[in-house]
Amino acid sequence: MTVLRYAYLGPAGTFTEEALRQVASSDDAVYLPQTDVGSALAAVRSGDADRAVVAIESTAEGGVTATLDSLATGEPLVLLREVLVPVQFTLVAAPGARLADVRRVSAHPHAWVQCRRWLAAHVPGAVHVPATSNTAPAALLSDALASGDPDAARGLAFDAALVPPAAVATYGLVPLAERVADNPSALTRFVVVGPPGEVPAPTGADKTTLVVHLPDNEAGALLAMLEQFAARGVNLSRIESRPIGDALGRYSFSIDAEGHVTDERVGEALMGLHRRCPYVRFLGSYPRADAVAPLVHVGTADADFVEARSWLARLRAGDVT
Amino acid sequence: MTVLRYAYLGPAGTFTEEALRQVASSDDAVYLPQTDVGSALAAVRSGDADRAVVAIESTAEGGVTATLDSLATGEPLVLLREVLVPVQFTLVAAPGARLADVRRVSAHPHAWVQCRRWLAAHVPGAVHVPATSNTAPAALLSDALASGDPDAARGLAFDAALVPPAAVATYGLVPLAERVADNPSALTRFVVVGPPGEVPAPTGADKTTLVVHLPDNEAGALLAMLEQFAARGVNLSRIESRPIGDALGRYSFSIDAEGHVTDERVGEALMGLHRRCPYVRFLGSYPRADAVAPLVHVGTADADFVEARSWLARLRAGDVT
Amino acid sequence: MTVLRYAYLGPAGTFTEEALRQVASSDDAVYLPQTDVGSALAAVRSGDADRAVVAIESTAEGGVTATLDSLATGEPLVLLREVLVPVQFTLVAAPGARLADVRRVSAHPHAWVQCRRWLAAHVPGAVHVPATSNTAPAALLSDALASGDPDAARGLAFDAALVPPAAVATYGLVPLAERVADNPSALTRFVVVGPPGEVPAPTGADKTTLVVHLPDNEAGALLAMLEQFAARGVNLSRIESRPIGDALGRYSFSIDAEGHVTDERVGEALMGLHRRCPYVRFLGSYPRADAVAPLVHVGTADADFVEARSWLARLRAGDVT
Amino acid sequence: MTVLRYAYLGPAGTFTEEALRQVASSDDAVYLPQTDVGSALAAVRSGDADRAVVAIESTAEGGVTATLDSLATGEPLVLLREVLVPVQFTLVAAPGARLADVRRVSAHPHAWVQCRRWLAAHVPGAVHVPATSNTAPAALLSDALASGDPDAARGLAFDAALVPPAAVATYGLVPLAERVADNPSALTRFVVVGPPGEVPAPTGADKTTLVVHLPDNEAGALLAMLEQFAARGVNLSRIESRPIGDALGRYSFSIDAEGHVTDERVGEALMGLHRRCPYVRFLGSYPRADAVAPLVHVGTADADFVEARSWLARLRAGDVT
Repeated sequence: MTVLRYAYLGPAGTFTEEALRQVASSDDAVYLPQTDVGSALAAVRSGDADRAVVAIESTAEGGVTATLDSLATGEPLVLLREVLVPVQFTLVAAPGARLADVRRVSAHPHAWVQCRRWLAAHVPGAVHVPATSNTAPAALLSDALASGDPDAARGLAFDAALVPPAAVATYGLVPLAERVADNPSALTRFVVVGPPGEVPAPTGADKTTLVVHLPDNEAGALLAMLEQFAARGVNLSRIESRPIGDALGRYSFSIDAEGHVTDERVGEALMGLHRRCPYVRFLGSYPRADAVAPLVHVGTADADFVEARSWLARLRAGDVT
Repeated sequence: MTVLRYAYLGPAGTFTEEALRQVASSDDAVYLPQTDVGSALAAVRSGDADRAVVAIESTAEGGVTATLDSLATGEPLVLLREVLVPVQFTLVAAPGARLADVRRVSAHPHAWVQCRRWLAAHVPGAVHVPATSNTAPAALLSDALASGDPDAARGLAFDAALVPPAAVATYGLVPLAERVADNPSALTRFVVVGPPGEVPAPTGADKTTLVVHLPDNEAGALLAMLEQFAARGVNLSRIESRPIGDALGRYSFSIDAEGHVTDERVGEALMGLHRRCPYVRFLGSYPRADAVAPLVHVGTADADFVEARSWLARLRAGDVT
Repeated sequence: MTVLRYAYLGPAGTFTEEALRQVASSDDAVYLPQTDVGSALAAVRSGDADRAVVAIESTAEGGVTATLDSLATGEPLVLLREVLVPVQFTLVAAPGARLADVRRVSAHPHAWVQCRRWLAAHVPGAVHVPATSNTAPAALLSDALASGDPDAARGLAFDAALVPPAAVATYGLVPLAERVADNPSALTRFVVVGPPGEVPAPTGADKTTLVVHLPDNEAGALLAMLEQFAARGVNLSRIESRPIGDALGRYSFSIDAEGHVTDERVGEALMGLHRRCPYVRFLGSYPRADAVAPLVHVGTADADFVEARSWLARLRAGDVT
Repeated sequence: MTVLRYAYLGPAGTFTEEALRQVASSDDAVYLPQTDVGSALAAVRSGDADRAVVAIESTAEGGVTATLDSLATGEPLVLLREVLVPVQFTLVAAPGARLADVRRVSAHPHAWVQCRRWLAAHVPGAVHVPATSNTAPAALLSDALASGDPDAARGLAFDAALVPPAAVATYGLVPLAERVADNPSALTRFVVVGPPGEVPAPTGADKTTLVVHLPDNEAGALLAMLEQFAARGVNLSRIESRPIGDALGRYSFSIDAEGHVTDERVGEALMGLHRRCPYVRFLGSYPRADAVAPLVHVGTADADFVEARSWLARLRAGDVT
């Protein structure tokens, strides 16, 4: 068996690592932590890694610009799978600490924003000590505890820290509170990215991700682009615009369509886009994390396309009976 | 060489015969005059004729109901060609008659309506003597003249008659005035109809005629049907609704689309209709009488479809380069 | 009380008279039978009648061309009401006749076509004796019976006749069979037409009838016209094309929209058409015969429009709270 | 005359200050530099400033998330004006420095990315010394020069720096090269934001900025939203999606429409959105920086709306002449 090498936003203990664990155990795979999304994707492009696991979208922030832009414009890569990770933090502290005593909370600014109401309710008055990453305070706390010096932890600039759940075991920490989040359904969506090659087989509940540019100076071009999907009964689950970068008002659309490139309706919609739009990049078809099969409108199942094709062939041969 | 038998709305001298003459000389074909459109089409269905020439649409009256309904619902027939005939009449009278003396004009009611302003200007005060067909007064006048009895023509109920130009030679008559018509661009469109078989080869300037039923009880169904054409860049040159006949509010649409069934964009639009609509009948693809090639929108030429198909095949095989 | 004068397609006993009876009893109104639809409408235009009752659409034939064209192009008239009459015939014969003995059936060709299967089942082998109108054989039979001469009825060219139910009492005839029709749900839709004036008050279940021309040479013009309705959530219950008459391919659309001109959504859609289309004629808003209220989509009730207008007024005044 | 207080992303010498200078001279206004976009907008909300000048969009990065999100969800603010600033840098160095001698270039990472090709061509081999802001290296250089110590400038970690043109005079620096940019048409678009109140008067070349949420779980909702604009002939110059933040797949659309809220077509489109969408926020109508008047489609000028309204009023009053 080939042991795959996974590049991801490290270090150990990040949400990205949590996503990666859903994909491949570290017993069966090589984990290659990277400093940023761009490096993770570059590692696949250069062949230094077989796969990258990167965040592509989150409930709170929307599309992850670095991921979307790198996928849209660099050397071709394809999405092979998606993974959803709840955005919930664990509050950690030195052993023996009590929630009531917490005055200073270290947290990455994004983490702080997403837990503000919880903190106001459970550690009222606590001040924010900004951290440079989600795992940084975990490392600091872990080092202090590991020093064996009981003053070391007390010498830290914070009493407790918001860290990803995966960081707790990694850094040998003690949870003060778990599932800390203001929006309990907040999620980050990660994708497993690989070099172009085989497309994952359709499962009946798939997504297809695309990048599409619109024709210049054409009024109604966005409407016309959406009609390419509508005419084939293909629903979209995500559509985001990104600047093309050369002039104001020129956009690249990042789209998730319901279905698989091997579905007839998706294939025909893709061909429609390819014919009408100046640029279409296929970023892959892969199983939906929620395994929900799309609603298939009347006349848009594969069998309908196959039957229509044979009907047309008969018409063209002069058989109209 | 096979001598084809053509059924058409007779007798000799009608506008339909004029259309037929554009299609096949009576030296090379058998002309089979019929009493009505239904009989002409029935003759092809029964095998008594090889072709029918029937009016399908006119400037003044719109779609010819008998033709549209028979084509839409009876045994399959296909359109092979279209012919345009100007709706202009010749005013005939006995030899020696002068326009200034005309008081009574025999004309089929449709002919009268279409020449009313001309008659008011050129034979002011003339009264209408209704004829049962366009050629009937020509036959009466011809018979009277042929009798050799100079009183016979004077005994007719009319002094002059509006007849199709083709009737002039057929009945050996003398024109008092030609190109009589209030709307000089009035036309009747005829089609040559045959049994199903080979589709005429595409010429680059073709039409495709269809009958389409909409899904029941579906708001926006007409809009959705039109979008099947729009999404592939296919223009429509005619769209008419006809009742399906089982309940009020249920329509069958008779459509002329620009292009040929072998054109990729037309084929894909047809398949889209076939998949989404409860009933689609293909009535043929044939050269346009005006030989005007359709405007082909960006990305909708055959080569664009072929290229898109090979692009999709590459994507499906995992090749995204 | 004013006694209204109604022009309609007579004579007594027609389906049109049956429609008229639903509108006004002959005790309370003056019935003015006319020889054709055009004359009935002309009588209102000239002031010789206050109202006309004319067929506008039938299950079997679709739109009634004479009615649609006269309403679309002549002096303005408005529709005030619609009436649905089942297309079912009564088979009448001389007293004592038995169904088993019927060999010859007089019927207007349209009536024959709509009862063919019934006749084949109940009077197999009976031959068709064409009548010039639905009521003509009723009059002939009535006259023969009234003559008192027992041979007179036997001298008729037919043994039985298909007549409108209303003709039975009018002509004092005896039904051999009632509700004769191949399609038991066949209907003719009549409209009551008057001179322009007040619009009938909305009932909550209304229709609005329009005539609309599309801009010349504009691809997608029909689609754009339909979108004017769709954008305001207005459904169409009928759409038919009629030639404008000046050139092939130029159509006038005859449309029934659900709702009343005083409904906000209908009013805004009408204004949209008026702004974008070269010609829009309003033919009236009137109660639906079936009294079915239209489905009102979210955000398209009158209150939604009123609220949106006051919201816009606030925005324009600088109040965005 | 009231002296307005402008909050903006400082310190002196930023691109934002350059935008602000186009709006109000520092002689006539109070400049209130802020540390970030959020603080600038907060200053207007709290009343500490009368206006904020903030970047909303750039050629290279697209929508400025902090600006869009704060405008979309916080206390209402309105856009009063837009300003375009070219994204071109000035390369500065100590007096007497020569381009050929530059080895180390200080630049904010965004600036470096946008000038990479220029630097490769003009100072090949130069290394990037990251700066924390666009103006930081200008301040360091200025301080070193001001010290009077000739070694101070030599002691800096860089030989030259990419700074905004506005920083040159502010910090008393000497340009080595001007208009440094890989994409000569790169722009940043700034907006002047104020508290709700009067809407700037229409100029004939205006934009209207909106935030729109789509109905949940409604397939085709984006298409339907775009059709609200299309049906009134309103073009969009920008459309971007931002997550609503509560669940994946729920988007808020940030839209720039061509025209002014007092334009009839814009007002009607806004009312349509307000009726059909769960949330619409008006962020203002203001003159376009490029002063280009929008293309007004047939039938969508104000006069067309006014005329249509009076036509509808006549119809409703029964006047159809």
